[in-house]
Amino acid sequence: MEAVEIVDNIKNGMKDAYFDPALFVKNFLRDNRTVMTEAESKSLLAAYDVPVVTDIVVASVKDALAQVKHMAFPVVIKGLGALTHKTEKGLVKLNVNTLKDAAKACREIKAAAGADLEGYLLQPMLKGRREFVAGLFRDVQFGPVVMFGLGGIFTEAVGDVVFRIAPLNEVHAQDMIDELISQKLLGSFRNEAAVDREQLVNVLIGLSRLAMELPHVKEVDVNPLLVEPNGHVTAVDALVILSKKDEMDGVSDLSEKQIIEKVKKTNAALDIMFNPKSLAVIGATRSSRNGFPGMFNRIADFGFTGRLYPINPNTDDVDGYKAYPNLVSLPEPADLVIISVPAPAVPDALRDCAASGSKNVHIFTAGFKETGEEEGIKLQAELDQIAREGDLRVVGPNCMGLYVPKSRLLTWMIASKESGPAAFVSQSGGHAQDFTHFATNQFGIQFNKAISFGNALTLDSTDFLAYLEGDEETKIITMYLEGVKDGRRLLKLLSEINRKKPVILLKGGLTESGARAVASHTGSMAGGEKIWNAVFKQSGAVRVDSLEQMADVALAFINLGETKGPRVAVVGTGGGVGVAAADSCAKVGLELPPLPEEMRRKIREFTPPAGTMIRNPIDNHYAFMNLDILSRTLDLLAAAPYIDMFILALHLDWFFTVDEGGQIERIGEYIINKAGIHTHGKPLVVVWRQYQPVLEIKEAAARFNKTLLKAGVPVYEGLPRAAFALSKLHEYHEFLRRNG
Amino acid sequence: MEAVEIVDNIKNGMKDAYFDPALFVKNFLRDNRTVMTEAESKSLLAAYDVPVVTDIVVASVKDALAQVKHMAFPVVIKGLGALTHKTEKGLVKLNVNTLKDAAKACREIKAAAGADLEGYLLQPMLKGRREFVAGLFRDVQFGPVVMFGLGGIFTEAVGDVVFRIAPLNEVHAQDMIDELISQKLLGSFRNEAAVDREQLVNVLIGLSRLAMELPHVKEVDVNPLLVEPNGHVTAVDALVILSKKDEMDGVSDLSEKQIIEKVKKTNAALDIMFNPKSLAVIGATRSSRNGFPGMFNRIADFGFTGRLYPINPNTDDVDGYKAYPNLVSLPEPADLVIISVPAPAVPDALRDCAASGSKNVHIFTAGFKETGEEEGIKLQAELDQIAREGDLRVVGPNCMGLYVPKSRLLTWMIASKESGPAAFVSQSGGHAQDFTHFATNQFGIQFNKAISFGNALTLDSTDFLAYLEGDEETKIITMYLEGVKDGRRLLKLLSEINRKKPVILLKGGLTESGARAVASHTGSMAGGEKIWNAVFKQSGAVRVDSLEQMADVALAFINLGETKGPRVAVVGTGGGVGVAAADSCAKVGLELPPLPEEMRRKIREFTPPAGTMIRNPIDNHYAFMNLDILSRTLDLLAAAPYIDMFILALHLDWFFTVDEGGQIERIGEYIINKAGIHTHGKPLVVVWRQYQPVLEIKEAAARFNKTLLKAGVPVYEGLPRAAFALSKLHEYHEFLRRNG
Repeated sequence: MEAVEIVDNIKNGMKDAYFDPALFVKNFLRDNRTVMTEAESKSLLAAYDVPVVTDIVVASVKDALAQVKHMAFPVVIKGLGALTHKTEKGLVKLNVNTLKDAAKACREIKAAAGADLEGYLLQPMLKGRREFVAGLFRDVQFGPVVMFGLGGIFTEAVGDVVFRIAPLNEVHAQDMIDELISQKLLGSFRNEAAVDREQLVNVLIGLSRLAMELPHVKEVDVNPLLVEPNGHVTAVDALVILSKKDEMDGVSDLSEKQIIEKVKKTNAALDIMFNPKSLAVIGATRSSRNGFPGMFNRIADFGFTGRLYPINPNTDDVDGYKAYPNLVSLPEPADLVIISVPAPAVPDALRDCAASGSKNVHIFTAGFKETGEEEGIKLQAELDQIAREGDLRVVGPNCMGLYVPKSRLLTWMIASKESGPAAFVSQSGGHAQDFTHFATNQFGIQFNKAISFGNALTLDSTDFLAYLEGDEETKIITMYLEGVKDGRRLLKLLSEINRKKPVILLKGGLTESGARAVASHTGSMAGGEKIWNAVFKQSGAVRVDSLEQMADVALAFINLGETKGPRVAVVGTGGGVGVAAADSCAKVGLELPPLPEEMRRKIREFTPPAGTMIRNPIDNHYAFMNLDILSRTLDLLAAAPYIDMFILALHLDWFFTVDEGGQIERIGEYIINKAGIHTHGKPLVVVWRQYQPVLEIKEAAARFNKTLLKAGVPVYEGLPRAAFALSKLHEYHEFLRRNG
Repeated sequence: MEAVEIVDNIKNGMKDAYFDPALFVKNFLRDNRTVMTEAESKSLLAAYDVPVVTDIVVASVKDALAQVKHMAFPVVIKGLGALTHKTEKGLVKLNVNTLKDAAKACREIKAAAGADLEGYLLQPMLKGRREFVAGLFRDVQFGPVVMFGLGGIFTEAVGDVVFRIAPLNEVHAQDMIDELISQKLLGSFRNEAAVDREQLVNVLIGLSRLAMELPHVKEVDVNPLLVEPNGHVTAVDALVILSKKDEMDGVSDLSEKQIIEKVKKTNAALDIMFNPKSLAVIGATRSSRNGFPGMFNRIADFGFTGRLYPINPNTDDVDGYKAYPNLVSLPEPADLVIISVPAPAVPDALRDCAASGSKNVHIFTAGFKETGEEEGIKLQAELDQIAREGDLRVVGPNCMGLYVPKSRLLTWMIASKESGPAAFVSQSGGHAQDFTHFATNQFGIQFNKAISFGNALTLDSTDFLAYLEGDEETKIITMYLEGVKDGRRLLKLLSEINRKKPVILLKGGLTESGARAVASHTGSMAGGEKIWNAVFKQSGAVRVDSLEQMADVALAFINLGETKGPRVAVVGTGGGVGVAAADSCAKVGLELPPLPEEMRRKIREFTPPAGTMIRNPIDNHYAFMNLDILSRTLDLLAAAPYIDMFILALHLDWFFTVDEGGQIERIGEYIINKAGIHTHGKPLVVVWRQYQPVLEIKEAAARFNKTLLKAGVPVYEGLPRAAFALSKLHEYHEFLRRNG
């Protein structure tokens, strides 16, 4: 089929039922061609719901002029061929108004294009000032990605571009459009109609379909995607680039069935690793008082519930445990083996695992791929081969491994022995320790599992996620990631799991320096911020920027139910603090609806005027001196359809003087026992501040904080943290509603 | 002078020596005209270094066609008159290519414009795809403001617009251009030359000059300001709008000399208020044990050093002090009077001040303009009149007034009795208390003065700033502002003072909800974020977003010298933490230069390989176990020209096991006594984290923190806070260098 014919077929915007995109692409590859001409690109795109400008392809200047005669001026004349950057090369002539000018335009194009010119493209000159760009490319971690953004010269200069990972559904496409900063251009704008939203959505979904169906399409660039004054969307120029190799290769090499089987097998192994009856430590040494206690001593100290085997060829006894020279001499294959010997000795230790039938391994040792040095990279490749051949499941190397309080399994110094609803999957061993300490000590959040997996030799974050999906102990998943091997699998798992239990995700290395640090920490590829933005938006995984934020958000998610929207009422004390509260809420996207006159009047009825301000934030210390006032205030606000959540913001210094802290206790009891009734079940969090350097007040504040946490009331020191947590709660529930 | 003549005069880009802009504007106002035509607008702008497109003004279609004959196609034809939104109304015809089309264009313009049409404007059609916008407007708080941004339809849609308050110098104009997000369009871009920077700077400075010289110009809009392919900048369209009133009225109604006299007088009064020999409290009551202690009791408790007079007509004695029925009955006029009676009684109390010759007053009471209610607004107006007539200096109302430890003057519950280098000027009374507590307790920062001034009846932030400028005790000024009466005065003071002592400024109410809260807190107008951005950029005042950040930054500024740049070396412990460190630094604009191979090799020479990573961040726990390694590492890095500052990031849990905290103490001593030598005087801050729930480690961490602070080493818990403080230190010194 020749390009001219194809273009003829679609000239009137009609799809050709006989046009076979796969065959079309195949013919190009057969001819060893990878860059399509504009006309060819558009004919392919037209088959995927991308409206393209009607155009005529001609071979010569003479043919061009013969056609232009029949067209309405002004017209556009472009050079045709495997050409890129046409505008910069002078191969695009806009606003051609006369036959004479058309001839001149053709001559100039011919001169500028040289040998690559295959002909001319004639188009009507479309009106419209709003230019967008749409396209697709293939990401090495995440596969096909659809992009949409501000077009023309602004794509590069302003960078207002949004990504989504294919396949896209309608919600994805709608969200993508909503995410553009230059929103206003999409609405009715300066006498031009609002963009035809349905058409635009179809373009993006069409590109996604194209990406999934034609694995040899490497790149599509529709620029500009013009919005005409009537709102219609048209691709005025387009470029399709093909790849000789199947770009979906390696992205999903397992069938659905194979994946299910693999997960089943891995889950069974993880079940054993999390609850081992026997545990061997290769490289177990005696406790030392002059430095860090060794791996073995820490495990023993935490009170491991199964049979514990130190492996050390140089001794018979480690801290009262009978030592063995190697794995093979153990009375049984160990359910879990921990390798803690210098890097060069790790391959032999791993071979021992395979030989002894101990298939589940945690390699603590560092010094592999993450060093970026030849020696380390080679060693890791060796481990990889041993693990593959021995069918081993390896956590690590370069990591802290597993913390499971129920099994009394811990490889670090100290941790809570209580099990709870949270799981933590962490690529960093330091973070695994820090976050479990922090979340437990700060908020009383307990973990049933924490997994530090480092360089991810065989077991990656996706394997742990797949396990936690069905793990009944786990109600909420927290996660620290640096990189991921199979991005598409990660996205799929996050999307599925997040609907059942929230996944709170901290992605390290989103800045350039951060990405460099990631490479030298776990040897991972960090990936760009825009593509991770797509992961968050499409999966609904809750995005946080630090371990502290992760704990703040986890506290809210564990204790609060659904919020219907982002509208908060703040009841608190202090004017300057009220300003800060309003600024903090606004910055994270929470709304503080101003209270209608009627509502203000009703609250004023029972609120003394002196030093109070009935706006939103409500500044009313009486509400905390006389809790009946608080109840009546909350009742009124909770009944209002424009309030979704509550923040009580208390300056504890103010209330300590009343009854030497007695009032603070009464406020605490009220919040625990009664506040929920008066908020009609709408989510409520408590914020306190305490600044005076008075020990008694500090102690009263600590008691207040502890009592509330124990009762399951999210309580924060300082409002920004509470506002952030609530904004994430809102985003999560909004995601569930939209993608339900 | 007729427009046609003027345009003729400037047709060749030459300025007319006889053109008098002031007279030109005056003639418009005389004729009762406030909207200039495009040609008139451009002729005015041309006199202020704005390059304008050559154009011809004609009265009729016939004249237009006669002129077009002599022009090179394509041309632009526009309708002329007091017309706005010309493009949307169809009054702009671009790319007119033939005489016939010109005739058609004129007819269409005539039909669309109707009665407002005064003629036609003929211009050559300039090439260029990069459109900007420049202009000026008058802000009610800050006076004339110059704006520059992305033009065409993108001004509104993308919002990439920057403000500066006139008058502008060259640095301001350069900074303004640098601040644009769409930077890339200003460089050489897709075969078009980089913008003529000098010309662009002259345009912005010209607009500033115009604003300062022509107070009746209310608004200028140059859109588009086109960048031609050769980089030249040309105003293709422009609109000047005049105001009948002098827009500079009220902005600077005092002469320089008058201002100096006023400051002298106010400073003398403030000297007395900060160091009063006698203090009267109107509304003094006996101590109460069932609630807040009263104003008088708190002052007495803090040990006020002068003569203290309770005023209360109902008693002879307040807590052992002889009470007086009113001010007039005092044995002397009081140096300072504090009014703490209900709002309706305040006017009479203030009259007493005037009558008794006690001219310096702090009104604690709230319930005035900030209520937004008629009653309160009326009461404040009454106070205003009494203060004016009595020539009183009033701090407040609705505020906590003054805290001066040297005078033992304090109106709140508790505070440090030590004086120090910091001053705090706060519009919020709550913040005055919270911040002084927080900064002192957290970091040992001591204040010589804290001033809470609330509704700013007569004394505003600018008065306190002017005092602190010459106050030798004050080395650093911290400040919380909600609004300001005289924005231009504030900007001038900030710019002057900030060069001598840093001003760290928290501006409340920059969000919409925040602005609403500001109105109901101190009855102030918050002002928009873009204009406050200009205040920060032009004055170099250090911008912070919370009281906590203000303390973090103050700590760094008090203890660190100049940094030559933003390039940081991080030496610390832990890989995941390294990633977080890199991300944190990058987010606030600090750079972490990757270390050259040569440097890495040198450090590696004396660093054991196991578990260390010589990149930047450097992950090297040995450096803290053997401080000689740290010295050698610092020496090497400090000698490198690409490192400006240091962060030592310590995970204290790791080091506690060595010597039960002994090593932590040694690290602390090393940092205090030796680190400075090895950093060659480049700024260094310390960051620590501690997560294990072990009391002994927590205590060791607290000791470590305290010891460093006492020795003047900035130390932070968690890296983001340190990175933020260092980024501000860099911004400040960079500002001084650029504006020196």
